[in-house]
Amino acid sequence: MTYCAAIRLKDGMVFASDTRTNAGVDHISTFKKLYQYGIEGERFIVLQTAGSLATSQAVFTKLQNDIDQRTESNLNTVLTLFDAAQMVGECMRSIMNHAKAVANADIDGSFTSSFMLGGQIKGQPPELYMIYPEGNCIRATEDTPFFQLGESKYGKPILDRAVTYNTDVNHAARALMLSFDSTIHSNLSVGMPLDFVLYRNDSLTLPEGRRIDEHDEYFNTIRHQWSEVLRQTLIELPKCPDGYWK
Amino acid sequence: MTYCAAIRLKDGMVFASDTRTNAGVDHISTFKKLYQYGIEGERFIVLQTAGSLATSQAVFTKLQNDIDQRTESNLNTVLTLFDAAQMVGECMRSIMNHAKAVANADIDGSFTSSFMLGGQIKGQPPELYMIYPEGNCIRATEDTPFFQLGESKYGKPILDRAVTYNTDVNHAARALMLSFDSTIHSNLSVGMPLDFVLYRNDSLTLPEGRRIDEHDEYFNTIRHQWSEVLRQTLIELPKCPDGYWK
Repeated sequence: MTYCAAIRLKDGMVFASDTRTNAGVDHISTFKKLYQYGIEGERFIVLQTAGSLATSQAVFTKLQNDIDQRTESNLNTVLTLFDAAQMVGECMRSIMNHAKAVANADIDGSFTSSFMLGGQIKGQPPELYMIYPEGNCIRATEDTPFFQLGESKYGKPILDRAVTYNTDVNHAARALMLSFDSTIHSNLSVGMPLDFVLYRNDSLTLPEGRRIDEHDEYFNTIRHQWSEVLRQTLIELPKCPDGYWK
Repeated sequence: MTYCAAIRLKDGMVFASDTRTNAGVDHISTFKKLYQYGIEGERFIVLQTAGSLATSQAVFTKLQNDIDQRTESNLNTVLTLFDAAQMVGECMRSIMNHAKAVANADIDGSFTSSFMLGGQIKGQPPELYMIYPEGNCIRATEDTPFFQLGESKYGKPILDRAVTYNTDVNHAARALMLSFDSTIHSNLSVGMPLDFVLYRNDSLTLPEGRRIDEHDEYFNTIRHQWSEVLRQTLIELPKCPDGYWK
């Protein structure tokens, strides 16, 4: 499985993906699921994926090849992020449909992938899209500032509590770190290292991003502190009144 | 959907189920999904369910009818809790197989239910079983002291962090309350009121249990305090060092 999340805030964006893939518990590997595209000063795009690794890798490869070969329409030339999201959706459907034809299969089944695409193009607002396996997409809004892909439930409560559109970028990044920490604790199929990218709106830079592994000092500091406060808070919660449990 | 959880501890057991059922968002109702059986001083049994309400209700009805009609083998006469779990599994399979035959359906599909059964019979240790839709079951151990049914992922991280076999019964009950609170926050298909039952090992009493609704003062105190500490802790976590986000 996989866990990816992305948040679109008033002042910036945060993207995070784990790197574990598994086909049964015997085949656990590390694969990057977060890729960056763009042109310094002009556009910044992050693409994240969950689902069939074969489909996802084929999509990433096709998109990169189109950029390298300067195909007329590619992620570095599309006019809007909506067009970019449409391009990813169409590319994915074409790869999935081809895989289905090769396998002579009727249903999408094991060829299914999902994507999230976020970023900013010069002169336009930052945007974040969730691209469904069907190829269509939805955009994050101020009411719904984050999207998740894959093994998303374990880490959703903390984002629900901590993140709104007006949340500070670094604060949201910390909440996202803890969201990943909770997921890794509870689910074997999501694992380190984690790829994180922070973007400041209108900077139009291409941040290098940070790969967080189990030796990352800051990540370990906040996960341990969080864990300790949770443990301590649970102990200190008021005892139940006499007769509460009948 | 549904969320049920049960914990078997050194000193007692805690059982909790929500009461929301839904068939699409138009059909949301309140149904009890936690039932108690037993004989004061001799045996105490709790049965919880998730899945098809038709199957689950049929199982509850059959088990209760067998008790009322003093059928030779019923939950009040079985020799062990393992036998009780087997009885529930067989009863459920027979009801599911009948429903499949009536519908002329090949797969279990929408007839599927799962159960958890826990309690104690005099002279025997307390036990907790998870009964799969196939009718077979597994038992909770000291290594794995809790089971969950239904919409279980949102509320699993806090149980993973807070509950071991040696955890105090009231402490575990509070962790379970917060596990339900997180789930209700993040998922519309799980809702109040909640049915909680606390059992002290070897007491062989039949606790009345507590139905927790949105006006429950103690529940609201701890959920608000928890929420506030989480919020405050996130704010107070150390800021990331300069240059951390490249």
